[in-house]
Amino acid sequence: MDAIKAVIDRRTGSVDRLSVLAATDMAGVDALIADRMHSPVSVIPALADHLIHAGGKRLRPLITVVAARLAGARGDAHLKLAAAVEFIHTATLLHDDVVDTSNLRRGKTAAHLIWGAPSSVLVGDFLFARAFELMVETGSMRAMEILSRASRVIAEGEVLQLTRAHDLNLSQKTYLEIISAKTAELFAAAAEAGAVSAGASAPHCAALRAYGQNLGLAFQLADDALDYGGVTETLGKNAGDDFREGKATLPLLLAMARSGPREVDFWERAIGRKEQTETDFRRARELIVGAGALDATLDLAADYAENAKAALSVFPKNDWREGLETLADFAVSRRA
Amino acid sequence: MDAIKAVIDRRTGSVDRLSVLAATDMAGVDALIADRMHSPVSVIPALADHLIHAGGKRLRPLITVVAARLAGARGDAHLKLAAAVEFIHTATLLHDDVVDTSNLRRGKTAAHLIWGAPSSVLVGDFLFARAFELMVETGSMRAMEILSRASRVIAEGEVLQLTRAHDLNLSQKTYLEIISAKTAELFAAAAEAGAVSAGASAPHCAALRAYGQNLGLAFQLADDALDYGGVTETLGKNAGDDFREGKATLPLLLAMARSGPREVDFWERAIGRKEQTETDFRRARELIVGAGALDATLDLAADYAENAKAALSVFPKNDWREGLETLADFAVSRRA
Repeated sequence: MDAIKAVIDRRTGSVDRLSVLAATDMAGVDALIADRMHSPVSVIPALADHLIHAGGKRLRPLITVVAARLAGARGDAHLKLAAAVEFIHTATLLHDDVVDTSNLRRGKTAAHLIWGAPSSVLVGDFLFARAFELMVETGSMRAMEILSRASRVIAEGEVLQLTRAHDLNLSQKTYLEIISAKTAELFAAAAEAGAVSAGASAPHCAALRAYGQNLGLAFQLADDALDYGGVTETLGKNAGDDFREGKATLPLLLAMARSGPREVDFWERAIGRKEQTETDFRRARELIVGAGALDATLDLAADYAENAKAALSVFPKNDWREGLETLADFAVSRRA
Repeated sequence: MDAIKAVIDRRTGSVDRLSVLAATDMAGVDALIADRMHSPVSVIPALADHLIHAGGKRLRPLITVVAARLAGARGDAHLKLAAAVEFIHTATLLHDDVVDTSNLRRGKTAAHLIWGAPSSVLVGDFLFARAFELMVETGSMRAMEILSRASRVIAEGEVLQLTRAHDLNLSQKTYLEIISAKTAELFAAAAEAGAVSAGASAPHCAALRAYGQNLGLAFQLADDALDYGGVTETLGKNAGDDFREGKATLPLLLAMARSGPREVDFWERAIGRKEQTETDFRRARELIVGAGALDATLDLAADYAENAKAALSVFPKNDWREGLETLADFAVSRRA
């Protein structure tokens, strides 16, 4: 519930209500997560716990829960889907860390540095399979379809990012395709699965899917901006990680497009050839801010957040809808 | 169909019949595999194809197909499950190669050495997700349950192997637990899923599961023996890989248990501390053969193959049953 707490600091009224409303469901999700990460092979719960209890925001399962409730869920079938969504997310993080060789994740040493990359890969596989076992328990073939498709699209997005991430000629269109697949797809699936578990109508399922998709884009764009605007302590990852890994995210792509010849040389050395000196990150940040690229990225994020909220117009105004609207605001106003 | 061809060389009559009987189904499985490994992200089909068309035996999907037919399948729902089984198997191979850092797989350079470990991890994830998408298409929640459970058990087995594989004090019991999970579980699930897709009775599903479980154990034990008894050209992997990686497989564990003090020093140096010289593999092979450990491993494999065949006694004698019996013989008599 850290996501909610973080918002409470700034926007008390509405989020207080969401926090109280979702608390029982999220406690149920946490209990399921703790129960289903268990394995007689002790490395598995140890490694999974390291990541799952490392202060993750539980944003995706929260979306499933609130979407289900907004769509009229009465039982608790959505809790298992929410736990499955968090397991899929954690599995992708574990595999992502091996791919990126990141040193920090959620403010803690990345799991692969403690247990080794092989364990991270295999525990990711374990959590992925567990997610499908949880879905089987709900008996919802439609939820299974949504989340198996999302898992496949995420993998495609990750591979696309891997092969194109250091490409200085990456277009904004391709960049948005990458983050649609690797990030927004799971937000979309999380919201849609919640709706499906509540037996919602097709238009309501589509509306919540659109909400999740737009929220995910807003969230990732804000994340990319934070990598140049945030500080390590509140980020839970190293500020400048994207830059040091030579990742062509939108702030950098926009700054490059607005660069003169001297700056182009800088980008080609620091990102294209990945020859970086200690002061390069500071210079990159100055160029990005100076070119208005950070603002432009955050503006685009705000547009997607507005789209997310607009998608909810098919629902009556109530606390659950307000909660999802608040999450959209949070996605672009957060500092970490 | 290489598995079948290999057997044809030695046992013409019965396997000829299985080959002809299963040919149409296996062509359908191959077509599904080719179709569903497609992705707009071109690295994915390229990498998947490298492994899937590298002369793999298609043993697991063949088991699904023949089990389904033996259990009375009339339609073609089992073809999608067979393709899903092959995708899960290929995904575990891709992740396994990263874990083991093997150089050869199915006689070709391991994918991670060509495309890098990150691509192997992510394409494995893609294939795993695709497997679940295929299962969704069959609409069988029971098949989904069997194969999601199997995927989880395989991951547990792989982690257990990772943490215990170099342990010279590994008991035969723990060793059998590891191979039950990492290998036999998918054989069991492949056979059971085939039975389920045919709408078989509970005793028939259980019989085919028991067949697959015992066949998988026989297959893995023969594989472990081949690593000390085979030659690289026919194995499709380097003979001695297990030894060089310091893996405590049954031939080695049995030889160790029968060793005098001087041999114990050898094993502790070569496996325990992994300090190996060029002639060590030859010495290990001599010690293992001399101690009767290779024969004992193959005897145990033969016992499991007999158990596999015995599990089929609930079915009438027909070509499909005979085909599965032949596969059990093949598992322990193969040279590669």
